[in-house]
Amino acid sequence: MADPLTPEPLTFADVEAAASTLAGVAHRTPVVTSTAIDEVAGAQLFCKCENLQRMGAFKFRGAYTAIARLDPEVRRRGVVTFSSGNHAQALSLAARLHGIDATIVMPHDAPPPKVAATRGYGGTLVRYDRYTEDRAAIAAQIADRNGATVIPPYDHPDIIAGQGTAALELFADTADLDVLLVPLGGGGLLSGSLLAAGGLAPHTRVYGVEPAAGDDGLRSLRSGSIVTIDPPRTIADGAQTTHLGRHTFGIIAERVTDILTVDDSALIEAMQLVATRAKLVIEPTAALGVAAALDAGHGFGGLRVGVILSGGNVDLTRLAAPTP
Amino acid sequence: MADPLTPEPLTFADVEAAASTLAGVAHRTPVVTSTAIDEVAGAQLFCKCENLQRMGAFKFRGAYTAIARLDPEVRRRGVVTFSSGNHAQALSLAARLHGIDATIVMPHDAPPPKVAATRGYGGTLVRYDRYTEDRAAIAAQIADRNGATVIPPYDHPDIIAGQGTAALELFADTADLDVLLVPLGGGGLLSGSLLAAGGLAPHTRVYGVEPAAGDDGLRSLRSGSIVTIDPPRTIADGAQTTHLGRHTFGIIAERVTDILTVDDSALIEAMQLVATRAKLVIEPTAALGVAAALDAGHGFGGLRVGVILSGGNVDLTRLAAPTP
Repeated sequence: MADPLTPEPLTFADVEAAASTLAGVAHRTPVVTSTAIDEVAGAQLFCKCENLQRMGAFKFRGAYTAIARLDPEVRRRGVVTFSSGNHAQALSLAARLHGIDATIVMPHDAPPPKVAATRGYGGTLVRYDRYTEDRAAIAAQIADRNGATVIPPYDHPDIIAGQGTAALELFADTADLDVLLVPLGGGGLLSGSLLAAGGLAPHTRVYGVEPAAGDDGLRSLRSGSIVTIDPPRTIADGAQTTHLGRHTFGIIAERVTDILTVDDSALIEAMQLVATRAKLVIEPTAALGVAAALDAGHGFGGLRVGVILSGGNVDLTRLAAPTP
Repeated sequence: MADPLTPEPLTFADVEAAASTLAGVAHRTPVVTSTAIDEVAGAQLFCKCENLQRMGAFKFRGAYTAIARLDPEVRRRGVVTFSSGNHAQALSLAARLHGIDATIVMPHDAPPPKVAATRGYGGTLVRYDRYTEDRAAIAAQIADRNGATVIPPYDHPDIIAGQGTAALELFADTADLDVLLVPLGGGGLLSGSLLAAGGLAPHTRVYGVEPAAGDDGLRSLRSGSIVTIDPPRTIADGAQTTHLGRHTFGIIAERVTDILTVDDSALIEAMQLVATRAKLVIEPTAALGVAAALDAGHGFGGLRVGVILSGGNVDLTRLAAPTP
């Protein structure tokens, strides 16, 4: 019997299988180019618009895939997660499409728009006090009581396979990318993208990009084991994770070209460049790849650079904020 | 010999000819739909994304068409116009693509981003004092001196034919629209859209939508002759025209279903709805059609409603502004 602590190795075939699961359910989002942005970047950018995905972020891909893969008897009892971000909305919507319940454990002080959006997609909210209660324990209790399945936000094989379908589509639609830049938080999107590259674009250099204030991914890669940090202060709220996962770290450590970091002022500049020139609303986390492409120090000049615009769920006042 | 004061009647064939001229030069912009917006509107919206057009607005279509139609000897001597808006940028870019000069007469107090954008596309600026000088006279002097051709922003057959290609594409891509809602300023886009509907969608009801503060179009339609108003106070800067043109009024009066008006607070709501749900940056003028679709009083509930998102050149602080 396999050691339960040794993860099943995920492969390109898992991403392909997830793509079949998502066909006709997830949007096949467009790849957008902009002459004006290319002039600023000095490179050719190919932007995969996951801000135009259902519920406004790539997270729908993983959440739907994970629910679809559950045994029907298990699935019927519902799903539960702890998140106040895009995964909460993604799981709520994916559960509704499967006709099952999703319970979302979210702190009392979660931003009202996130609460409203999660409710809007049909999720049941359970609130907790982030200073005195443990969200994972609350989710586990709910799972025990209801028989619901916990679907974590990133460290789960089906989540990783599902997230990889965004890069799969980008590679299928855009030949000969020299570089792919992927926002990095918990590593679901990056590890899925690496699996996709392994199958479709073995010569493309794939980088993770994380906020400079939350460089646990880079430090983990350098040290060879998962480094945990305090919750980072960054406007990239989708990348405020404190550590990579066991599955995601394994794939990233084995396959990634490198991990780059960018600071918040570069994120705001990138977000505003995309809004004013490509006319697309993206959230700060989605600006990670664009900001890295704009940094001349990385040596991407003249190259064909793929960028995953991971989501578009941003407060407009933040989008319009002056650079700090 | 034809009376020079009687305009050549424009037909659908002129719009088709402009489409051939623009093939491979203008972007064939996408038609975007959004379940979230449809839920708010109670109707099915099909948004033609001219905010994703070159230089960020439909104006490129008309400007390029008008320059392309000039006799080569005449064209060589350049073009001139008076505008501080999207037409200035459109004419500058279209002239550059033709390898000729564009001179733009613009007031000293024009917004710096508009000045920078026009220069960025290669236009030569001539500044004037809007309180003491006549911009049309200045443009005419330049035309006399250089042999350049004045290309006005809307009241010109080739401009109208060019602008009509946006609706032509929308009708070709989206069958059986019940209604088409078109932003109305000087009437170039609306009259071109009416010609396109005449050829491809004779059963679609086509409405012009103008700011409530600048309802000269509606008043002209009701009175049967062109009404001139003072420059209206509205955030819809692309519709701050004071009167329709001779050509545009003729086509609109003959063919339009009706003209609707919306106020600025409805424009801000519509602009923000499109940004937060469809993740698209549109300018206030581009929100005219969306705002009209959202107004339950117009009776579009349950219908298939086409909307032309006419442009995306907006200051982000305006996009994020609270509703007045």
